[in-house]
Amino acid sequence: MDLTKGQPYLAIPGPSVMPEAVLRAMHRGAPNIYEGELIDLTYGVLSDLKIVAGTVHNAAIYIGNGHAAWEAALSNVLSPGDKVLVPAAGAFGHGWSEMAAGLGAQCDVLDFGRRAPIAAEVVAEALRNDPTHEIKAVLAVHVDTSTSAKSDIAALRSALDATGHPALLMVDCIASFGCDRFEMDRWGVDVMVAACQKGLMVPPGVAFVFFNEQAAKRRSEIERVSRYWDWQPRANPELYYQLFCGTAPTHHIYGLRVALDMILAEGLNNVWLRHETLAKAIWAAVEVWSSEGPLELNIADPDARSHAVTSLRVGKEHGTRLRRWCQDQAGLTLGIGLGMATEEDPNSDGFFRFGHMGHVNAQMIMGLLATVQSGLIALDIPHGSGAIEAAARVIAAR
Amino acid sequence: MDLTKGQPYLAIPGPSVMPEAVLRAMHRGAPNIYEGELIDLTYGVLSDLKIVAGTVHNAAIYIGNGHAAWEAALSNVLSPGDKVLVPAAGAFGHGWSEMAAGLGAQCDVLDFGRRAPIAAEVVAEALRNDPTHEIKAVLAVHVDTSTSAKSDIAALRSALDATGHPALLMVDCIASFGCDRFEMDRWGVDVMVAACQKGLMVPPGVAFVFFNEQAAKRRSEIERVSRYWDWQPRANPELYYQLFCGTAPTHHIYGLRVALDMILAEGLNNVWLRHETLAKAIWAAVEVWSSEGPLELNIADPDARSHAVTSLRVGKEHGTRLRRWCQDQAGLTLGIGLGMATEEDPNSDGFFRFGHMGHVNAQMIMGLLATVQSGLIALDIPHGSGAIEAAARVIAAR
Amino acid sequence: MDLTKGQPYLAIPGPSVMPEAVLRAMHRGAPNIYEGELIDLTYGVLSDLKIVAGTVHNAAIYIGNGHAAWEAALSNVLSPGDKVLVPAAGAFGHGWSEMAAGLGAQCDVLDFGRRAPIAAEVVAEALRNDPTHEIKAVLAVHVDTSTSAKSDIAALRSALDATGHPALLMVDCIASFGCDRFEMDRWGVDVMVAACQKGLMVPPGVAFVFFNEQAAKRRSEIERVSRYWDWQPRANPELYYQLFCGTAPTHHIYGLRVALDMILAEGLNNVWLRHETLAKAIWAAVEVWSSEGPLELNIADPDARSHAVTSLRVGKEHGTRLRRWCQDQAGLTLGIGLGMATEEDPNSDGFFRFGHMGHVNAQMIMGLLATVQSGLIALDIPHGSGAIEAAARVIAAR
Amino acid sequence: MDLTKGQPYLAIPGPSVMPEAVLRAMHRGAPNIYEGELIDLTYGVLSDLKIVAGTVHNAAIYIGNGHAAWEAALSNVLSPGDKVLVPAAGAFGHGWSEMAAGLGAQCDVLDFGRRAPIAAEVVAEALRNDPTHEIKAVLAVHVDTSTSAKSDIAALRSALDATGHPALLMVDCIASFGCDRFEMDRWGVDVMVAACQKGLMVPPGVAFVFFNEQAAKRRSEIERVSRYWDWQPRANPELYYQLFCGTAPTHHIYGLRVALDMILAEGLNNVWLRHETLAKAIWAAVEVWSSEGPLELNIADPDARSHAVTSLRVGKEHGTRLRRWCQDQAGLTLGIGLGMATEEDPNSDGFFRFGHMGHVNAQMIMGLLATVQSGLIALDIPHGSGAIEAAARVIAAR
Repeated sequence: MDLTKGQPYLAIPGPSVMPEAVLRAMHRGAPNIYEGELIDLTYGVLSDLKIVAGTVHNAAIYIGNGHAAWEAALSNVLSPGDKVLVPAAGAFGHGWSEMAAGLGAQCDVLDFGRRAPIAAEVVAEALRNDPTHEIKAVLAVHVDTSTSAKSDIAALRSALDATGHPALLMVDCIASFGCDRFEMDRWGVDVMVAACQKGLMVPPGVAFVFFNEQAAKRRSEIERVSRYWDWQPRANPELYYQLFCGTAPTHHIYGLRVALDMILAEGLNNVWLRHETLAKAIWAAVEVWSSEGPLELNIADPDARSHAVTSLRVGKEHGTRLRRWCQDQAGLTLGIGLGMATEEDPNSDGFFRFGHMGHVNAQMIMGLLATVQSGLIALDIPHGSGAIEAAARVIAAR
Repeated sequence: MDLTKGQPYLAIPGPSVMPEAVLRAMHRGAPNIYEGELIDLTYGVLSDLKIVAGTVHNAAIYIGNGHAAWEAALSNVLSPGDKVLVPAAGAFGHGWSEMAAGLGAQCDVLDFGRRAPIAAEVVAEALRNDPTHEIKAVLAVHVDTSTSAKSDIAALRSALDATGHPALLMVDCIASFGCDRFEMDRWGVDVMVAACQKGLMVPPGVAFVFFNEQAAKRRSEIERVSRYWDWQPRANPELYYQLFCGTAPTHHIYGLRVALDMILAEGLNNVWLRHETLAKAIWAAVEVWSSEGPLELNIADPDARSHAVTSLRVGKEHGTRLRRWCQDQAGLTLGIGLGMATEEDPNSDGFFRFGHMGHVNAQMIMGLLATVQSGLIALDIPHGSGAIEAAARVIAAR
Repeated sequence: MDLTKGQPYLAIPGPSVMPEAVLRAMHRGAPNIYEGELIDLTYGVLSDLKIVAGTVHNAAIYIGNGHAAWEAALSNVLSPGDKVLVPAAGAFGHGWSEMAAGLGAQCDVLDFGRRAPIAAEVVAEALRNDPTHEIKAVLAVHVDTSTSAKSDIAALRSALDATGHPALLMVDCIASFGCDRFEMDRWGVDVMVAACQKGLMVPPGVAFVFFNEQAAKRRSEIERVSRYWDWQPRANPELYYQLFCGTAPTHHIYGLRVALDMILAEGLNNVWLRHETLAKAIWAAVEVWSSEGPLELNIADPDARSHAVTSLRVGKEHGTRLRRWCQDQAGLTLGIGLGMATEEDPNSDGFFRFGHMGHVNAQMIMGLLATVQSGLIALDIPHGSGAIEAAARVIAAR
Repeated sequence: MDLTKGQPYLAIPGPSVMPEAVLRAMHRGAPNIYEGELIDLTYGVLSDLKIVAGTVHNAAIYIGNGHAAWEAALSNVLSPGDKVLVPAAGAFGHGWSEMAAGLGAQCDVLDFGRRAPIAAEVVAEALRNDPTHEIKAVLAVHVDTSTSAKSDIAALRSALDATGHPALLMVDCIASFGCDRFEMDRWGVDVMVAACQKGLMVPPGVAFVFFNEQAAKRRSEIERVSRYWDWQPRANPELYYQLFCGTAPTHHIYGLRVALDMILAEGLNNVWLRHETLAKAIWAAVEVWSSEGPLELNIADPDARSHAVTSLRVGKEHGTRLRRWCQDQAGLTLGIGLGMATEEDPNSDGFFRFGHMGHVNAQMIMGLLATVQSGLIALDIPHGSGAIEAAARVIAAR
């Protein structure tokens, strides 16, 4: 029997569920890209993106994905041969490092494994060991989408400050932007990258780089920044087309406008709180399931868990099977395990992830959990009972 | 805190959740209504509607809602002064009777209360008490959307047959069409009415009347049928515009085409089975909640329960409150209680309904139930524990 | 070669071109139909419809098409056997008469042929010949979509008033609503019917009946009005569902809301003026073509021409051919000739129509005309030259 | 009076008019990006893009605009310090050169002015003057969107071949892709760049780089290609995400699928022929207008004119005024003059452009022309008469 014929629910860690209103706004003929309403609309979007980022400094929008934002940000502050320090708490830390290497940087990776966030003190120690300031930047992923580890960026900043080292602090907020609390200026982040298809609820296609004056200064010292990646004209355009180094992503701008309106209407703090509460409901359920069986949260420390993506471990024989069951029997698509491969589990079959970013409410998360509950029963995976009630208590208590 | 900012879920007994593909098909410029693709498309829709109805006889589409279909069907077989017998198992039985009265018919209502289906034998008895065959038709609602009582139409036919009475059997399948098993020809139904916004998953606006040769013959004996309601040219048009007595409902036809494609691709039997399984999951959860508290299913006998709508009783102080909680705190909209008013509960505040018709899958239903679970906890409404796991076992067992 | 692969342009006299914003508004999940935003939205639509109709009296919305509105209006003021006077200036006059006959009315048709509007004095004369006031209503079509004749309703009212006859004046504005100036109250119209798919720019599916107190009084004297057609609860509902006698046409209400917003933002007078100017551009072009060939406007008197639809005559061998050429070679769909059949031209092949109602601007109309220009050349149909420049002068002169 | 309230027509040289079906396909929830239908869909798109490009070699899709494709292509074949030869027939030639300079290349620009295409012999001569083969690539824009000059790429290839110089021939087909005949392999083009928002009829956001084995070899000799720009894994991915160096542009892929289906169903040759015929209709009209007034085609030689964009000159006092009139009075948006600034006309006010690329049919182009006709009259700009009839004769003659 097939019980999937209804609204599909894509609960992967991006792209996320797009609001009706966003998709609706994008269903339109193209506007003029030289005159007319698009111009003001775009400047408004740029300005509101900064509010979400928590910065009064600079924002650049790139047509591109998260990897494009990675490369864009790096291209503005690194020259070939420069050294970067990359504390990695999952696959995306390593990924960013590889992008830097692709630009000719020397990358020192501090690997914090797959179950823990970045330890600020270890990073600081590495900087202290660089008295000649060869390290030009520290690349830190706020929430690593693979492990769902969330690192304490404010603490990292403090640790760096304590060393007196001038390396820039560059942060990847791709998985946390518009989901987990992040305050660029207050936390002292120099460069931040994000993208539109997660907390921002817009189809993939545009990405963002935010940078402060410290980073802008570094940019001015770089010998050469390629035209497409150059953030300077994008952030301070004299002509509209410079905002995008060419043709504007017209439809995405309409989508972003609606998404930002929704976020600002709800209130950024409320958005963060909603994600936090829903994440806690998820944790409550998983902890009950974990009490009598193989399923467990990848990150033990609640303070180090993302509010937007949750990585789970359940054992090689169960992970992919459970994920497939939810999709093929119930209409719920969960995220695959990523970056968790080992010799015994080369395809990360023991892992899967919940995406709960952006346009998510209580009934969706409760549906996700209750569907997984069904799958655990269907596949006879041992688990503690009462998980949904535990999650319901979190929802009920708010 | 507001946990509603995500995909809203409308779980009322119609309109139902519309598939993306249906809405997409309706998002288009109007087609020519005199020539071109619309013509064949419409005849195909008409033909496939008959498959869903289980008839090889006649189908007429009306621009209108369910009430329009009620009046249309009656207008073709009744003249003012004619008598009809209306066994009612809920508000919609009474409603259809009032439509008949509005056309000048004399209506004998057999009231089966609010918690039971039509008792075929009682109807038969009434016919036996009509030796002069003044009763021209029996109007039976298959599933009464107010009580969620489902009546056994095949049994009703047998009982009528046993009396030898020539009254037409007219059945309202508005809430069951494309959800609960219904076989017009095999069950001996003469006239059947349905609409598009429930099991057929299309925005409200068109309704259907199916009729067999017996009913067509009655139509030919009627002195006058108004032009708009006349089913004859609609079912057997010489010119395209006769199908709709004027301008075609162009966009609805595109929507119906997609919806019927989805139903036929899944297989009508599978559609019915899906609704049955999901209904059983709901019942399983409610039965657990009922074990220790005021919440209960309105219909005790499982055989008399709809697979597409479930009416619940929870006590005047809880019903509306629980419904509002689900909507205002979790993004789930449930149906209001309808036709359940009493002196003590003049606004039916002790009642609410789940709609689970059409485009529904396991993850949606599990989300609905787990959200109600949250509400029961939040509002401190006593209830048995383990409800979601009971529902999950039904889903898991299929 | 195929030059049609681009934006198709449907220039038939309804359904008309739907604005992007209207279709976008209708692309959404269904709302609750018992509570929430839909309720206020609907009352606002009802109220704004009256502004477009030019009445402060009553409005009823029906799920249905124009024929439904015809039958609805008649059902509220006629009883079987009542007599109506129907001055007809085209096929739709006759059509409305047939709907009345279908309800049991006796219809006296005054046929004004196919090339002229209603002559008010002739109607008045007929009323004077009815000293016993058997005629209960005069049914006049404002713009007959078949002939594109527009009748002077204010003059008709004056002529009727002069007779002292109490017959209601009922007017069909289906083709003129939101296009041609119409002022229900100021002109003394008792009942007016319209629909959504022409000047109102919304996909077919809802229709409107407006009525004043005189008509309401008549309604109260009628023995029986069927429930679905009864305008009383629709216009003065105690409960929301009475507005539509059952389930609301949810998506159409969202579409109407946007369409009415567009009309009111432009200003009703400006909407009328736009239609008038565009019509004059069309006439200017056709008059040039007519100067040397068979093509001509069906209605000679400019004052009797619709501003929303234009019927043309070109000779049996040319009409359908030209229409097909425009569609199959250029992507422009024109309206077929309707109600123009004669013995020599049984399929009205010598006729075609331009629809220019609702969402039409100068570039669309100029494209329509320039495409027809191409067709005249391609098919070697004799015609005067300079037509497009003549039309352009009208556009340029505004 | 405002005659713009209807379907707006955006006739700028990109973004172009998007087909309903493309926008509809993009109006959907996101798909899974790791498994499921998206995977095959993407590979099919990649393969069909090569058909449109006329190559059996390699294709890479980038989330980005045309400028991104420029930089991507250059990044795979140039190292800092390399020399490129850039024959420019308009602003975009210069633009591409600047992108190359931004990557550290030395650019020799051969400027062919603003009214003529690239002269192949001049380019060949420049290569002959480079006996040491310092020039690594010739960057030629097929159709320069600013001047609407179309250069003969096959002739350019022959001329290059005759020199025996090994420089790669890189061609920008952004404005001609899917509009003007282009045959990459047959014409001996090594690298070709294009984007989705013009002939491909999809909202801006993805761009394409095609390359042959010669270019792939050059890529393998380059010291370092940045990860995002590296075409190798995009064209020959081992894992799906490598196709896009990260998250896929999910919605654009659905749009591209429909657009390519439309192009292939029409037939690429027919698409080219349609653009050619419509362009000839435009030229015919403009030539008549030119006969008695200041308006003229920017490119005199028909063989050197684009079939997708037409640049016009009308004098500083008329250009912007005429363009604004069409937009503000008739609902037609034309393209601004680009790259035509002189001392006397610093804002290129004497220029404007017609975009006629992608989803364009005869009725649209005739509407464009007839609207401009209206504007010429309205603004009293001298012009020859009979222009629309001249264009109509082209359409009629096909």
